[in-house]
Amino acid sequence: MEELTIFTPATVANVSCAFDVLGFALDNVGDEMTFKKTDNKGVKIKMLGNSNLPTEPDKNVAGVVAMEMLKKANADFGILIEIDKKIKPGSGIGSSAASSAGAAYGVNKFLGNIFNKIELVQFAMLGEKLASGIAHADNVAPAIFGGFALVRSYSPLDIIKINSPEKLFCTVIHPQIEVKTENARKILKKDVLLKDAVEQWGNVAGLISGLHSQDYELIGRSLQDKIVEPVRSVLIPLFLKVKQAFLEAGALGGGISGSGPSIFSLSKGLETAEKVAEAMKKVYSQTGIDFDIHVSRINSVGIKEI
Amino acid sequence: MEELTIFTPATVANVSCAFDVLGFALDNVGDEMTFKKTDNKGVKIKMLGNSNLPTEPDKNVAGVVAMEMLKKANADFGILIEIDKKIKPGSGIGSSAASSAGAAYGVNKFLGNIFNKIELVQFAMLGEKLASGIAHADNVAPAIFGGFALVRSYSPLDIIKINSPEKLFCTVIHPQIEVKTENARKILKKDVLLKDAVEQWGNVAGLISGLHSQDYELIGRSLQDKIVEPVRSVLIPLFLKVKQAFLEAGALGGGISGSGPSIFSLSKGLETAEKVAEAMKKVYSQTGIDFDIHVSRINSVGIKEI
Repeated sequence: MEELTIFTPATVANVSCAFDVLGFALDNVGDEMTFKKTDNKGVKIKMLGNSNLPTEPDKNVAGVVAMEMLKKANADFGILIEIDKKIKPGSGIGSSAASSAGAAYGVNKFLGNIFNKIELVQFAMLGEKLASGIAHADNVAPAIFGGFALVRSYSPLDIIKINSPEKLFCTVIHPQIEVKTENARKILKKDVLLKDAVEQWGNVAGLISGLHSQDYELIGRSLQDKIVEPVRSVLIPLFLKVKQAFLEAGALGGGISGSGPSIFSLSKGLETAEKVAEAMKKVYSQTGIDFDIHVSRINSVGIKEI
Repeated sequence: MEELTIFTPATVANVSCAFDVLGFALDNVGDEMTFKKTDNKGVKIKMLGNSNLPTEPDKNVAGVVAMEMLKKANADFGILIEIDKKIKPGSGIGSSAASSAGAAYGVNKFLGNIFNKIELVQFAMLGEKLASGIAHADNVAPAIFGGFALVRSYSPLDIIKINSPEKLFCTVIHPQIEVKTENARKILKKDVLLKDAVEQWGNVAGLISGLHSQDYELIGRSLQDKIVEPVRSVLIPLFLKVKQAFLEAGALGGGISGSGPSIFSLSKGLETAEKVAEAMKKVYSQTGIDFDIHVSRINSVGIKEI
């Protein structure tokens, strides 16, 4: 193989009650990455468009992932990675994860697919560590596995793919303000009430059960987060108004995407997801804050070759 | 209908990580209850065998459930309930729940099945309230629904039935010591670390996913309780030895049944579940404590007419 182009998806991590353990991939929102084999060893990064992300391989999330994989595999060649970044950094829909997971997937192809998906997630987590200081897996896992990906445990790393119900669509609004992941982590309390935790894992259980049984109403009833959302939502202007608007427009439920500032909602059917987009748009149009809106089916396969 | 006899099952609540939200019903361990219509209004309770449970209807868990149902339905007849209590009170395998749920099921039959299953759970919770002071649903729900029953929320009451994987068997040992539910509640900390709670709901998600996808290994990996078991297990002699023994004998996992003192484990296949019983027996045989052991398939339908 001399050249490969892939689509690597945006992802929504946390998914309301399932804070830090669940994520899902979007189908039509993501970056494009092209990989070219080079005779010279090592990794080169080229950013397309007007990105100001670093191109030094050891400072770029795709770079660190690719370098580590080539090293592990003792590769006698190098790789040039061209990244067409369509997911804005800092959006809360897995911008760094798309590049990290994409690099893991792409480089593995040139190595003859010697690494399995769990190993790809582990490599991709190096990129997440570079981006945020924490090697979390709840964005890179759904990017690599597709569907909903449950990170049950980190030690050992245990990822469970749960297929998305067919008619499940996601609407995401990305208000163009900055919420630093670091700050979003810092404001969380270290302790929670046991009774709140019990309520939360009751909802997590309901959400997972609803996904498996394609019970859209149950998914909706379970999308309740008593622990993280009340604390973090203060960092996102008009969060409660957006939430009220998407519920009134018929969404099953939703919450903060990743650590924000994006807000996601899940709906049954494209038509409702588009109504939800209109309702979200209306709320933010009353502010001076720029925003992007995406409507997407849940991606069932993760990264795709194009 | 003039007379009805039912089998009402023992149940295991909490199920390790899924503290306070999940329970399942056993198939061959339970009480028998016979209901007889009487011309005189009101409820009469007769305990068969040598039980010392109260027979005054307002002090008996089956009695309070039956009285409330007859009152709500404005019944112009009464019911005599004969209870053959085979589940020992205080065992931690839902002794009061079997009587409460059985009463709800039986009385409903005489009323022409006017109440649905959720309503039956609500009535049965009155019995649980009388028995322990708390109207919890995680034993009565699986007794009424069968399989695994998730209590996602109490307000409104939301019960989700999850079918048990076919080859799932339960082994329960009941050491005949007393653990008061009240004390087992009291020793729990009111706060938990967020990071422990996250690990716990990751396991809850894994358990629910494993049940849905009949992934026995995943069920086993997910049966980990970092929050309640470490605190409560000190009330149960040799808990850790029993746990080590059932894991070595091939069980998928297990933990404290309800608030104890019973210890449950889940296995794939009857043969393993019986080996586990032998291993548990061996541990307790070295003590002076009497014990019962049960091996049972997971009950898929709940209460049965016989």
